[in-house]
Amino acid sequence: MPDPAPLSVEVTRGPMVESRHLVHVVAVDGDGRILRQWGHAEEPVFPRSAIKMIQALPLIETGAADAYGLSPKELALACASHGGEPKHVSTAAAWLERIGLDHTALECGSHWPTNEEATRGMAVRGETPSALHNNCSGKHTSMLSHARHLKEDPRGYIGIDHGVQRRVSAAIGELTGTDMARVPVGIDGCAIPTFALPLKAFAHGLARMASGKGLPTDRARAARRLLAAMGAHPDMVAGTGRFDTTFMGAIKGRITTKGGAEGVWAAALPDHGIGIALKTVDGTGRAGEIALIEALKTLDLLRPDEVDAVAALARPAIRNRNGTVVGEIRPGRPGF
Amino acid sequence: MPDPAPLSVEVTRGPMVESRHLVHVVAVDGDGRILRQWGHAEEPVFPRSAIKMIQALPLIETGAADAYGLSPKELALACASHGGEPKHVSTAAAWLERIGLDHTALECGSHWPTNEEATRGMAVRGETPSALHNNCSGKHTSMLSHARHLKEDPRGYIGIDHGVQRRVSAAIGELTGTDMARVPVGIDGCAIPTFALPLKAFAHGLARMASGKGLPTDRARAARRLLAAMGAHPDMVAGTGRFDTTFMGAIKGRITTKGGAEGVWAAALPDHGIGIALKTVDGTGRAGEIALIEALKTLDLLRPDEVDAVAALARPAIRNRNGTVVGEIRPGRPGF
Repeated sequence: MPDPAPLSVEVTRGPMVESRHLVHVVAVDGDGRILRQWGHAEEPVFPRSAIKMIQALPLIETGAADAYGLSPKELALACASHGGEPKHVSTAAAWLERIGLDHTALECGSHWPTNEEATRGMAVRGETPSALHNNCSGKHTSMLSHARHLKEDPRGYIGIDHGVQRRVSAAIGELTGTDMARVPVGIDGCAIPTFALPLKAFAHGLARMASGKGLPTDRARAARRLLAAMGAHPDMVAGTGRFDTTFMGAIKGRITTKGGAEGVWAAALPDHGIGIALKTVDGTGRAGEIALIEALKTLDLLRPDEVDAVAALARPAIRNRNGTVVGEIRPGRPGF
Repeated sequence: MPDPAPLSVEVTRGPMVESRHLVHVVAVDGDGRILRQWGHAEEPVFPRSAIKMIQALPLIETGAADAYGLSPKELALACASHGGEPKHVSTAAAWLERIGLDHTALECGSHWPTNEEATRGMAVRGETPSALHNNCSGKHTSMLSHARHLKEDPRGYIGIDHGVQRRVSAAIGELTGTDMARVPVGIDGCAIPTFALPLKAFAHGLARMASGKGLPTDRARAARRLLAAMGAHPDMVAGTGRFDTTFMGAIKGRITTKGGAEGVWAAALPDHGIGIALKTVDGTGRAGEIALIEALKTLDLLRPDEVDAVAALARPAIRNRNGTVVGEIRPGRPGF
């Protein structure tokens, strides 16, 4: 039987559909059963930053999080693609200092904050970006923390054979039921390895994070702790005006979501023990956001008050530079 | 007979194709004959900013360009989606002053420059953006210029019934052979009307700009003058590091190209009398750039030295934040 059609997302302008996107989406329970799929479930995708909540498991499981007394806010930052706003940067800097390092230990490279106001503020103060402003600096600080806690040489922690990446990839492999020695490997934007996973396996890992099913007690507890931290501090996970922050804020963190580059999204639903993973075929984020909410609504996983709370995200208006509404982004008919 | 397949563009990471795009492309000669098409030729698309070279015809045809002594640099800016760099802003400001107006007459709305260095420079100097920094400020100054020259009230010049927009839409209709009263109308990002055209008609308009075929002598001369201005001043058409500027610079302006929002591109080839129009299905610009060069190469419209000069644009590397090459964008196999 052929796969069902991918979810379709339309971008309109006036009376016309101007652009179209296709999105592969899979929802899976803790036992790995597919509850619903749109498009392909078995095709491998690089999960990119959407998998940060799983990548953060070793931070807790090695004992590093407790040894360094990490707060829920810091755990949320470990799973973040942050906007480089002052609160993100200062949280990462203080955490790094606590583990006896500074920004020069981060091997993620630097870039100006994705938050434009933060970038302009830095320019006004005559500052230039360091690796702390990299959207992945929380994840990299997390990785350095377990290296330090285990007394490993932190240098080269981004390498696939370093203890850090071996622990991270082992966690991904175990959660998603994947033989990590056999999957395609790429290099992520922040220089660590990214492992291609079938969308279904990725969703299963997220369902295990949400449900604890099939996980050792300690791992299930670590997973719950990370999801709770992200839900409690959505402003640390992305940033002002960005989807994950706004969405989790609107639904009070009841569902944990995390986007990644090239239109990947992850959702973990502890209340239902469900995981959802999606990939926009063309890599655009705008389509992933709409598809995620559409999938949640179709599967009746949002309460009526939550549907109302996310209405502006589910079908966002497009405005011109004068603020006039000129179109919208919305779920579309199947196919192109 | 079904349409041929759209052009495909692939984005790779390591050993895998991570994202895919489809692009409709049509190449047409001055008589309106399709030389080659990939995907749909008849489906209407909003040409967005890619049609600025046609929208600028009334600037010359009303006599405004000569009355105000406009330079080729200013004519190029009339056809630009500029980055808001100091040279763009100062050129627009000086031109506006010459027609007795200032930035408050521009009805395009304001935004921070798309050029990030320009934005940071403004922040350092404590400046905030005006409509001069809007990427369309050259086009709007051009529109105000014919309104002033014809002694029309410039206020409300963005309205579909104002003399300015009536002249602009008449030029588009005549060049593209389109009954403008019957096409879908949307509002562009800069608040003026945008008229949906079949891709083939848009390409025909570009071929007429390039060849002068079927145009009155004065109009053919105006078209040549605009294309020559853009080719001579590619830095005014887009900006530092952006496709149209880099591409036209690399081929010494022999082909005039202009991108627009939602993955639209236009090319006019005076040497061959050919026009090319394309639209990325999903609206991404990165695919439009690759598709344009691939179409030009396939149709043997680039000389060998030009193929070499644009090699880095034809198949650009993707780098991580440390500068390591982690993938590329390239022409792909047909279909998804």
